[in-house]
Amino acid sequence: MNTADPFSPIEWRENSLWLLDQRLLPQRQKWNRYDDIDAVAAAIADLVVRGAPAIGITAAYGVVLGWRQSRQDPGFDLDAALGRLAGARPTAVNLAWAVDRQRAVLARGGDGEALLAEACRMHRQDIEGCLAMGDHGAGLIDAGSRVLTHCNAGALATGGYGTALGVIRSAWSQGRLSAVYASETRPWQQGLRLTAWELARDGIDVQVIVEGAASSLMRAGLDWVIVGADRVCANGDVVNKIGTSNLAILARHHGVRFLVAAPTSTLDPHTASGAEVPIETRDPAEILGDRYANEPRVRAWNPVFDVTEAALIDALVTEIGVVLQPDKDKIAAHLAGE
Amino acid sequence: MNTADPFSPIEWRENSLWLLDQRLLPQRQKWNRYDDIDAVAAAIADLVVRGAPAIGITAAYGVVLGWRQSRQDPGFDLDAALGRLAGARPTAVNLAWAVDRQRAVLARGGDGEALLAEACRMHRQDIEGCLAMGDHGAGLIDAGSRVLTHCNAGALATGGYGTALGVIRSAWSQGRLSAVYASETRPWQQGLRLTAWELARDGIDVQVIVEGAASSLMRAGLDWVIVGADRVCANGDVVNKIGTSNLAILARHHGVRFLVAAPTSTLDPHTASGAEVPIETRDPAEILGDRYANEPRVRAWNPVFDVTEAALIDALVTEIGVVLQPDKDKIAAHLAGE
Repeated sequence: MNTADPFSPIEWRENSLWLLDQRLLPQRQKWNRYDDIDAVAAAIADLVVRGAPAIGITAAYGVVLGWRQSRQDPGFDLDAALGRLAGARPTAVNLAWAVDRQRAVLARGGDGEALLAEACRMHRQDIEGCLAMGDHGAGLIDAGSRVLTHCNAGALATGGYGTALGVIRSAWSQGRLSAVYASETRPWQQGLRLTAWELARDGIDVQVIVEGAASSLMRAGLDWVIVGADRVCANGDVVNKIGTSNLAILARHHGVRFLVAAPTSTLDPHTASGAEVPIETRDPAEILGDRYANEPRVRAWNPVFDVTEAALIDALVTEIGVVLQPDKDKIAAHLAGE
Repeated sequence: MNTADPFSPIEWRENSLWLLDQRLLPQRQKWNRYDDIDAVAAAIADLVVRGAPAIGITAAYGVVLGWRQSRQDPGFDLDAALGRLAGARPTAVNLAWAVDRQRAVLARGGDGEALLAEACRMHRQDIEGCLAMGDHGAGLIDAGSRVLTHCNAGALATGGYGTALGVIRSAWSQGRLSAVYASETRPWQQGLRLTAWELARDGIDVQVIVEGAASSLMRAGLDWVIVGADRVCANGDVVNKIGTSNLAILARHHGVRFLVAAPTSTLDPHTASGAEVPIETRDPAEILGDRYANEPRVRAWNPVFDVTEAALIDALVTEIGVVLQPDKDKIAAHLAGE
């Protein structure tokens, strides 16, 4: 296990929440300060912070800010603000999960200090979970392997260390990897801007490809695709960044294995399958820019997550272990600690 | 057949070659003038003009310029210049094919006028071929179909009308299409910048997707993927823009049909299979920009074409007809006019 204190894009200091503005990476490293729960919800919606575990932790700290606002302003409706925060983005289960954990603290009569302690605990548990996940996942990777990751499921998407990138960090530190590839991940280019940046920061060599090159890369030689998840359904279907299901289908075609790394907080036993998950569709301008502002015939369809069928997944890795060829029964047994 | 005079990105006027600078679309429509064969080779290498048929026609006009230079400067080595022109890009077969056709004119003792007549003939034949291809292809498309195209195999990639977009134009004008999608096509975004621009210019509604959304689009409902080709090998393997083979594999997985539109000049009976085709790899900066100029750990792998196995192709459409489930024997028979 890599026990060095991992880098985190989320910090609590000076009684405020600070977020590394991920929209500006890798060119600029700018930290934004937050003292208002609705500003935190906006930061989540606007992708200052992204990645399922990271937005969960961010929201947990956001509740601390909301509680403080409700003490300072008797007219402040904390419950309504919690609803807005939980609804800032629709797809990842961690956001609602984190707000619910803080609601439980409030229901027990917890105060701001108790909420902050809970947020810090969630943050710490997330990092510990990522470190454990890294070790579980690395155990599946043979020496000399070539791996491809998609989007950013790294330190920047979590409390620190990362889910998919946690597996890659652990495998790299154990000398198991001969090549690491990152797909650029349009339209926000999280692979190009975030994954490449944070791997290089940790001394890991990385080669970026466009999504279109995935099949060519697999044909040239690849052993694993390693991704995170925004939600894992009861049957093992994985909801993750748009393009993930492409990679799973291509991997199966080329005989490349497919690994999903996600904390148990991302496992959602209440959602039977991927068909039930709301898929966020974002502004067409994220793809078009202002190129066709005066041309109504050109539009864009911009879903930002997709569903990968459980049958295409070779391994699901959580902080408590590995589920090979995940399905409904194996996931239920895993969550039950069996 | 659409008999209106089609738009062309290549013009011969005032005794010069003019190319629409495709790097600046859709924001700017700028025409560059060429009077030097090596400047034409550079324009091909630098993507002022792209698309297999279009670079062939451009090269044919470029030979006219080279011949004129050789008359004005007795020290000018035309044969060496033809070699540089034919080698400006390595993957498409049309470039070498066009230069060879002009070499044959020279071998017959042809002068500048004969070379220009041959270039004009190639240009006109290409447009006629695209119009015929459009009609052949449209005949395969049922009314109400939803189609996806990749990169730009349109008027901008040909002498005019287009190969894949010729099929889409014809099918649209016959009222057969209920939706047209274009994948953005990183890193140069030919789908976003060129295909969307030229379809809208012709009054055809188009929705752009990122490559990562292809599987989601197919699951939501798609009938055909329609692409062009830079080279079709003797066994039916298709070399085309990076990302084409992804789409063919995804289409097969989702039960979507896959159509390749290419003139017979793109069919290469001398190349047995895709494994023999040199795949151009371009500058990593096309993907990275200047983001990681000081970070040697971050590199990019930038192949710009890939190979789609013949077994994944449902229909190959040329100007002389349709080959269903193309293979070596069927393609040979097609070329023999059987």
